[in-house]
Amino acid sequence: MSTNQRTDTIYGVNPKTGERLDPGFPAADAARVDALVADAVASFARYRATSGPDRAAFLRAIASQIEALGDELITVCDAETALGPVRIASERGRTVNQLRMFADLVEEGSWVDARIDTAMPDRSPLPKPDIRRMLAPIGPVVVFGASNFPLAFSVAGGDTASALAAGNPVIVKAHGSHPGTSALVGKAVSAAAQQCGLPTGVFAVVHGPGSVVGSALVKHPGIRAVGFTGSRGGGRALMDLAAARETPIPVYAEMGSINPLIVLPHAIAHRGTAIAEGLAGSVCLGVGQFCTNPGLILVVEPAGGDAGAVGGANAGGDAGAGAGATAAFVSRLAATMEAQGPGVMLNRSIASTYCGMVARFASAHGVVTHTGAGSQEAGGGASSQPDDTGTTQAAEAGPDGHATVPPALFSVSADVFVQSPLLAEEVFGPATLVVRCADATDVTRCLSVIGGNLTATLHGDDEDFAGYADLVRVVEQTVGRVIFNGFPTGVEVCPSMTHGGPYPASASEFHTSVGTGAILRFARPVSYQNCPQSLLPAELQNANPRGIMRIVNGAYTRDPVV
Amino acid sequence: MSTNQRTDTIYGVNPKTGERLDPGFPAADAARVDALVADAVASFARYRATSGPDRAAFLRAIASQIEALGDELITVCDAETALGPVRIASERGRTVNQLRMFADLVEEGSWVDARIDTAMPDRSPLPKPDIRRMLAPIGPVVVFGASNFPLAFSVAGGDTASALAAGNPVIVKAHGSHPGTSALVGKAVSAAAQQCGLPTGVFAVVHGPGSVVGSALVKHPGIRAVGFTGSRGGGRALMDLAAARETPIPVYAEMGSINPLIVLPHAIAHRGTAIAEGLAGSVCLGVGQFCTNPGLILVVEPAGGDAGAVGGANAGGDAGAGAGATAAFVSRLAATMEAQGPGVMLNRSIASTYCGMVARFASAHGVVTHTGAGSQEAGGGASSQPDDTGTTQAAEAGPDGHATVPPALFSVSADVFVQSPLLAEEVFGPATLVVRCADATDVTRCLSVIGGNLTATLHGDDEDFAGYADLVRVVEQTVGRVIFNGFPTGVEVCPSMTHGGPYPASASEFHTSVGTGAILRFARPVSYQNCPQSLLPAELQNANPRGIMRIVNGAYTRDPVV
Repeated sequence: MSTNQRTDTIYGVNPKTGERLDPGFPAADAARVDALVADAVASFARYRATSGPDRAAFLRAIASQIEALGDELITVCDAETALGPVRIASERGRTVNQLRMFADLVEEGSWVDARIDTAMPDRSPLPKPDIRRMLAPIGPVVVFGASNFPLAFSVAGGDTASALAAGNPVIVKAHGSHPGTSALVGKAVSAAAQQCGLPTGVFAVVHGPGSVVGSALVKHPGIRAVGFTGSRGGGRALMDLAAARETPIPVYAEMGSINPLIVLPHAIAHRGTAIAEGLAGSVCLGVGQFCTNPGLILVVEPAGGDAGAVGGANAGGDAGAGAGATAAFVSRLAATMEAQGPGVMLNRSIASTYCGMVARFASAHGVVTHTGAGSQEAGGGASSQPDDTGTTQAAEAGPDGHATVPPALFSVSADVFVQSPLLAEEVFGPATLVVRCADATDVTRCLSVIGGNLTATLHGDDEDFAGYADLVRVVEQTVGRVIFNGFPTGVEVCPSMTHGGPYPASASEFHTSVGTGAILRFARPVSYQNCPQSLLPAELQNANPRGIMRIVNGAYTRDPVV
Repeated sequence: MSTNQRTDTIYGVNPKTGERLDPGFPAADAARVDALVADAVASFARYRATSGPDRAAFLRAIASQIEALGDELITVCDAETALGPVRIASERGRTVNQLRMFADLVEEGSWVDARIDTAMPDRSPLPKPDIRRMLAPIGPVVVFGASNFPLAFSVAGGDTASALAAGNPVIVKAHGSHPGTSALVGKAVSAAAQQCGLPTGVFAVVHGPGSVVGSALVKHPGIRAVGFTGSRGGGRALMDLAAARETPIPVYAEMGSINPLIVLPHAIAHRGTAIAEGLAGSVCLGVGQFCTNPGLILVVEPAGGDAGAVGGANAGGDAGAGAGATAAFVSRLAATMEAQGPGVMLNRSIASTYCGMVARFASAHGVVTHTGAGSQEAGGGASSQPDDTGTTQAAEAGPDGHATVPPALFSVSADVFVQSPLLAEEVFGPATLVVRCADATDVTRCLSVIGGNLTATLHGDDEDFAGYADLVRVVEQTVGRVIFNGFPTGVEVCPSMTHGGPYPASASEFHTSVGTGAILRFARPVSYQNCPQSLLPAELQNANPRGIMRIVNGAYTRDPVV
């Protein structure tokens, strides 16, 4: 039976040609899942006991092993994803840099947020005990590989790096869109584990349909947390599974986002063209396959010819610019997007979904199509998803498929936008929608119907911000990151990054999946009361042998407790 | 109809006499819930814009207003809870201290975990942007008052104090067991808000059945998080409601816990009597109505007469102590518990549940009852719960009820314990169960069947810990706090406290509901990329006007960014 064959063996598919890529990878069955989780659970005691420097050595060994894969990784990954050797090499660089960043973090050690309150035996009415706390690992973590980042958010990506850094075994459910890449990177991680003398259960990769293998992992009692990057439907399905467990666990799902970009009146009047050109590059970057792709452009039209522009702080000197500035902006955006030409998406399923959404936008009431109307249908299915938690798999696309799509640009009025739930949906791909707003109130109305996002961007000049400061305070409530006079694509990997946001951008607005803060998703506080020094973790001992920053009796210090 | 009357008006009941206490408090209807949430949402913009010092002044004003309630608070609270004036005055002290602790925390301001990574415009291949992040408030929070802490975990308790400190409006669902106390404290908080010029929506108290009013609040789209202290059933019901929302929100539920206490062989052989006496006090404190009440005592019997003691590190010199030491320990524990005499529980419903559980333990296979077998049945219902998310309300108990119960002590072998799921359930009240263990393996087996707990306690001497260090590493994986040679009751309110633990102790093992760390439940990271100085929150501005500790380009510092 063909259905069983598909489930039993996972093959990559070349998105440029539709041809099946060998070799196939066996899908895990229930017994294999049980065995892997048992191995992870068994390894936890030993892995959690490793020191920060031990884990740093492991993470650095993973980075080196990935680099040692050399061109084979680039070749296999490009065949599976069509992302191109330059982008893949760059993503490999980001991946190994992330691993080394977490290595530095845990080697330094202060991330455990150690707090020490020493005893006051003479306190009245009750003596105060000695209490010390730090963050500790939680246990085996499942990570779902992402289709759109086959390296940086997949087998040895940010979720895996942060979970391992915190001291947890990791099992990765490889994405069906790039099984060969996943297997190669998985081999590198396992080689690093062996090199560092760690138990085999500290890391594993499994292949198989998300709806079977992924679900089994998320429901398994031995698993303590889940990392996921993908579609809203897939993320929510995992959240619901995890919440229904006898022992619920967190799912750190980073899901869809339309990333509103707001252009204020002075900016559009004075440098609308430059903004349009930069924006076109951001929309089309990587064929629009970034979580931070700007899919919604809220243009506050300059006052003047447009009688509708009544609010906000329209700068002087723009009289007569009116809606003409917006028209020029849209026109330049369309031309620059068109000039990028068609691109090959990650797989036929994603391309098909993109084309379906573009067609729905184009035929929606009140929507003007500026480019992309003639986009070719890449396939028949309309319900496919860019991740593989569902039953629709990239690998299921027939060999006659292809995944080439053109960019698309639409515009609409604010009034129509706020009444059209379809237009607030994410179009995963190189498409964006301009909404003509009269003032800050229109922008706020639009933001209120789109829910949480990973990012929001404001383009404005000093003349704009003098009058739109309140809008910044509104915008920051809806996202994890606010960008000024830039573009949301390109997520810096650093301590201050928040890559997360209010639902549905993330399952939990309290966390980031990029940057050092990502480690906090996989550690929990443990306190020790009147614990003998010899039984305390090194981070909490009086001598502070790790030399970490601690809060001792309320004060930050690296000094020993005396 | 009597059912409707009960739902429409909430009355306290004197647990000593069963008599209804006036006045009654009107239960909120759906329109009232909507109006309160709308008011909270509307107040958020103004409240989130307050500075740390502003919020500190508010929290201190609440503390002073509570103190200004004077003896009336003690009298009303004692009538509703029977906790006694001494305990209530002490809990009031803890409550105002908590408020002032959070005031100090937000006035100082470093809790926002500010991180600044400055720009590197010349970085190759891509310039590095300026990124800054800090923790920001989330929006309106619902807090459920707890039956067992009518002040410290209710209207102005730790959940409310930490949510307000973080900058969020709070709506409290008053516990049906102490509506008069809740109304008084609510009045104090609202007076403080008015005194500080804050909008009315920043705080509200509502009365009504948890299954109606509480559920409506948790499901309301305007609510962003929930704090709860109560039973496992009640907490899980709220978790399930919150997870099923269109926009899921976190429920920080602190639920039941049996708090295992482990006595190691040298300790029991040499100071078993003293441990038994201290333990009796901890079990019976406050009629056993603490989340940290030690309900499971795992005694590792000294080697010697007991041929079963084969593992662990039994200290020399104990030969012959054998099971005799355990028998002496149990005997002294029983006598000391009996000497405490019966106590009045918080309400008839809780007392009834306690007596039902004691009866089930007493008749369970292999269980020996040492005291408490003749405990009187306090009422008929067996399905009642110590919180009021369900339909069973303290206020529904008839005027003929009473809530006086005796302590209860049981013992059982490790083999029977691990095969009896009933014995791993929490008995909320002055009861405990001794399990006779031969070695560390027995202890680990017992821990593996009880799930997560708030605390675990080890009683041991140096001779014990030399051989049981591995057991400490096992124990710490199952709890939020490990106590050495003490008792779990008495939760210090300080930066290093973890009051939380793996499910079912808490909904989320990643958080504490006591101590300064509790504020982290109600704040989320927000990043600003290339943000003009004038639009940044004070905490992230170059000048560091708040003088807080920040991580600037990876280094901890209070210095300005230059």
